[in-house]
Amino acid sequence: MPTYQGPIHDVLFLLNEVFDYDAQITTLPGFEEVTPDIVAAILEGAAEFAEDWLVPINLPGDLAGCKWENGNVTTPAGYKAAYDAYRKGGWPALAAEPEYGGQGLPASLALIVREFIASGSMSFGMYCGLTLGAYRSIAAHADDALKRIYLPKLADGSWAGTMCLTEPQSGSDLSSIRTRAEPDEDGTYRITGTKIFISGGDHDLTENIVHLVLARLPGAPAGTRGLSLFVVPKHVPVVEDGIVASTVPNAVNCGSIEHKMGIRAQATAVLNFDGARGWLIGAPNGGMRAMFTMMNSSRVGVAVQSVGAAEIAWQNALAYARERRQGRGPDAATKAPDGGPEPIIVHPDVRKNLLTMKALVEGMRGLYIDAAIALDVKARHPDREVSDAADGTLALLTPVLKAFISDCALRVTDTAISIFGGHGYIHENGIEQFYRDARIVPLYEGTNAIQALDLVHRKLALGDGAIAERYFDTIAALIAEQRSNPRLDDMSTALDNALQLLRECTAILRRHGEDDAVEAAACASDYLRMFGFVALGAVWLRIAAAADSALARSPERTDFLSGKVKTARFYFERLLPETWVCHSAITVGSRSLLAIPETEL
Amino acid sequence: MPTYQGPIHDVLFLLNEVFDYDAQITTLPGFEEVTPDIVAAILEGAAEFAEDWLVPINLPGDLAGCKWENGNVTTPAGYKAAYDAYRKGGWPALAAEPEYGGQGLPASLALIVREFIASGSMSFGMYCGLTLGAYRSIAAHADDALKRIYLPKLADGSWAGTMCLTEPQSGSDLSSIRTRAEPDEDGTYRITGTKIFISGGDHDLTENIVHLVLARLPGAPAGTRGLSLFVVPKHVPVVEDGIVASTVPNAVNCGSIEHKMGIRAQATAVLNFDGARGWLIGAPNGGMRAMFTMMNSSRVGVAVQSVGAAEIAWQNALAYARERRQGRGPDAATKAPDGGPEPIIVHPDVRKNLLTMKALVEGMRGLYIDAAIALDVKARHPDREVSDAADGTLALLTPVLKAFISDCALRVTDTAISIFGGHGYIHENGIEQFYRDARIVPLYEGTNAIQALDLVHRKLALGDGAIAERYFDTIAALIAEQRSNPRLDDMSTALDNALQLLRECTAILRRHGEDDAVEAAACASDYLRMFGFVALGAVWLRIAAAADSALARSPERTDFLSGKVKTARFYFERLLPETWVCHSAITVGSRSLLAIPETEL
Repeated sequence: MPTYQGPIHDVLFLLNEVFDYDAQITTLPGFEEVTPDIVAAILEGAAEFAEDWLVPINLPGDLAGCKWENGNVTTPAGYKAAYDAYRKGGWPALAAEPEYGGQGLPASLALIVREFIASGSMSFGMYCGLTLGAYRSIAAHADDALKRIYLPKLADGSWAGTMCLTEPQSGSDLSSIRTRAEPDEDGTYRITGTKIFISGGDHDLTENIVHLVLARLPGAPAGTRGLSLFVVPKHVPVVEDGIVASTVPNAVNCGSIEHKMGIRAQATAVLNFDGARGWLIGAPNGGMRAMFTMMNSSRVGVAVQSVGAAEIAWQNALAYARERRQGRGPDAATKAPDGGPEPIIVHPDVRKNLLTMKALVEGMRGLYIDAAIALDVKARHPDREVSDAADGTLALLTPVLKAFISDCALRVTDTAISIFGGHGYIHENGIEQFYRDARIVPLYEGTNAIQALDLVHRKLALGDGAIAERYFDTIAALIAEQRSNPRLDDMSTALDNALQLLRECTAILRRHGEDDAVEAAACASDYLRMFGFVALGAVWLRIAAAADSALARSPERTDFLSGKVKTARFYFERLLPETWVCHSAITVGSRSLLAIPETEL
Repeated sequence: MPTYQGPIHDVLFLLNEVFDYDAQITTLPGFEEVTPDIVAAILEGAAEFAEDWLVPINLPGDLAGCKWENGNVTTPAGYKAAYDAYRKGGWPALAAEPEYGGQGLPASLALIVREFIASGSMSFGMYCGLTLGAYRSIAAHADDALKRIYLPKLADGSWAGTMCLTEPQSGSDLSSIRTRAEPDEDGTYRITGTKIFISGGDHDLTENIVHLVLARLPGAPAGTRGLSLFVVPKHVPVVEDGIVASTVPNAVNCGSIEHKMGIRAQATAVLNFDGARGWLIGAPNGGMRAMFTMMNSSRVGVAVQSVGAAEIAWQNALAYARERRQGRGPDAATKAPDGGPEPIIVHPDVRKNLLTMKALVEGMRGLYIDAAIALDVKARHPDREVSDAADGTLALLTPVLKAFISDCALRVTDTAISIFGGHGYIHENGIEQFYRDARIVPLYEGTNAIQALDLVHRKLALGDGAIAERYFDTIAALIAEQRSNPRLDDMSTALDNALQLLRECTAILRRHGEDDAVEAAACASDYLRMFGFVALGAVWLRIAAAADSALARSPERTDFLSGKVKTARFYFERLLPETWVCHSAITVGSRSLLAIPETEL
């Protein structure tokens, strides 16, 4: 049975020593009181919640799965109790606005809490994350009347949320959505259609579920420009004197749930809307815009969730490597000729795998926390130029966060299986579940291939390329700053080289974007991967610099800090070179790929 | 529900046009009659068996799993019937000696049949493969009396086999095996101990199961030098007049079976030997040697099985990419501005994934078939020098076949999930099962990390390095031969460059092997990966050369042949560069890896 401890120490190191969280956040209006003490206390509470309530139900919940009977879904044993504890702890309200019952804390902090929750149970975290997403979409696009009804219910967690996009014929391509919305006389709409793959589509955790549904108004244009977004509650609230007095069932029916590879305690539902009552939010035919509020934050959420899955896999792999005795290290014969079996961490290959995991997990966390801070800066910074800059960087990085981090999470969870050997293949050890759960992250919220197209086609073009240039310039500035530190010189040099390659490929991709859409699409995934490795490298250089400077003044933390510097070095020496392959693919181009007619496959 | 067609066309192309199978095999004593017609007929029969009997039971069998009750295991519905059909078809006897009821056909042909069977159901194929392994071990090491009892039963499939090595404290490191063997007065032994992770450890497919058990004789030396190998039948045969008249139960008890990530129709058992009667095979304390007969062929078997899993994943991914319409290709706006959704194969990223799968699957198959032919040459070639050479090459390549091909199979089956998107995550589509089933291949029969150590420590040292040199020389000769063909010049050049890097790294590893065991161990996996890519490159150059020369004389096969040449080009341009990362790791060395004390992790 896996164990887990919320990585508070690592998070606080990133917040306090790498990203100067206090200075960045408490200067934002409304966050003046988010002191390091408050932050630490919240992280401790979140870690405790994940450790006590989620880790114990995760493995049994995978075995039991959700059950569907007569249109109703039951979550596995313990999920309802954990959800009640989650509500009682005030977790759904963390970053919600005080006027709707929220605690008004930074979105960045809420995201870190979501990492811990995802470590405890990815399935559980999805119910919570979708609810937060629904909250944000309604807050951003609905009118006040709807906000007053829905936001307090979502903020206190008594209602949950979903995002209803996919239909059988319409997955990656939303333009083919067929669900219809007919206006009713009372200003509401009747929604009719079938949605599939709806996470949290039905369950027994809350008294109501708020579906956000993409559908077409009569006479709407074809394609995505004809989609509108609707709030469609499972139970329609009856409002008296401004408060929800009761609810009546809506014509939303859960037709079945999927039997999936992982996240088996998460109900992935087929929902049938049969003239269900809905409320338009955002403008008519403005559904994509409204939905993107939710999708963009969901994509950052996927990165966070990926780190959660990778973190618990890493913790357990490290513990196992220290404990499992099998064989002897390559230098055992000289070191201790008569000794018995040694812990497998003495095997250099095991150690390489562990370091790969550590370098990826901690780098990925740095990457998302940096972006999460930008989320708060974008939303709150009084200087428009600063908030716009944060917005631009975030837009640029969102596909990288989603795709690169989810890919890395697969690699980390897969490596954990390898460290456990045959024991990793056995369900009761809980390791293979981390991989199976994580296998969804590259697929949903826009497949990673689509993220790559978004990066290459939309994001590189932002500000006619200026947003990407500015991001690269900040990395170049970081490198220049660290050049003066001879102890990190190898790292600055490695990152500088990789950045040059990335800039070179960026220019190539920008050209393709203008005149060769096929070539651009063929290289997009390689480009995103390369971008991700460089972005992770920038995080590691910052971590190394912070740890290196702290080493002199905090000798009592030598193990921790020196471990960071050395992991950074490992990253630059052994992982960053993977960018070469991407560079080669982009510069060689896709002739060989495109030369083969379909008939020759 | 997945579909499958035995890849007869591809196999025959490799046999007839790439490897000159007819000339190589029919010149071996005893194989004179293995004509191309016979080979084709056997492949057709095997394909039909896999298609008709195995594919239909594979997905339901994954859902149902094996059941354990009161020490007895029941396989899922359809497995017994399929096994009976397998016996009736004479498949277990294919490569067995005629004197024991076998058909005396080449081992290489039997391995190809195993690929088809593994595609149909990996779980099923393992019951069969273990039986063949038991047959070979007994044939190689037991005395005539035992052979006469056991071999006919294994050859007709009425008895099955297992390989009992692992114990709770003894996985990768067999030196810590504790199972004891006490000599009895009648010349047999009483075996006592617990074995875990025993594939096919119990089931209802056969009337008896023959366990090959590693155990220690009284007073045996510590470590692996003190292990002996025993035949321990589940039911002890009572022999009358030289034939098995009946059986009596032995003290072997199946304590439980594992709940696993995949191969869920395969019973992975805990076996308790409680003074069970066993017969020594091979010399006392010669168990490792005897077991290695079985393990080496099992490792080639793992490669074959890996190709089987990868092949069915590839077939289904290709079919899905041709059929699933979603979005439009990057050049659709110019090609057909008013068209509807196109099959996803038009997306360059999907096509890249498909080509990656094709290049790996077909290359891997070429690699194992080449090795499988060497197996027959080694066993039968009258010229000792030729058979010794085959033996050496096979020894060198065995860890590469096992580890590189199993790693590639994971990549292929994982890529299939990506091509299916969210639908790949749903059990009923059958795609995620291929990954889960294949996830065991890098772990068992010696983890891939152990294969890498075997390659670096034992295999590179064979003949003081001459075996590896000779293998590289054959690749160099192949390159030289193809230099004259300008149409393949880019490929010869790419392979030549990669071969130079591999030779350079070989020299480094050979040096480390002598004076720096830690560094050798730290680079071993990278080295094996690099070796694998070069070996696959050699196969692809041979395929490209054969296809290129056939193109001129067989215009009616242009699609097929041109597809081969172009896939080869894709391999050299887009996949072979992955060797650079391995080269970098080996040349940079493992300072960064080894510099971190365990306390800093």
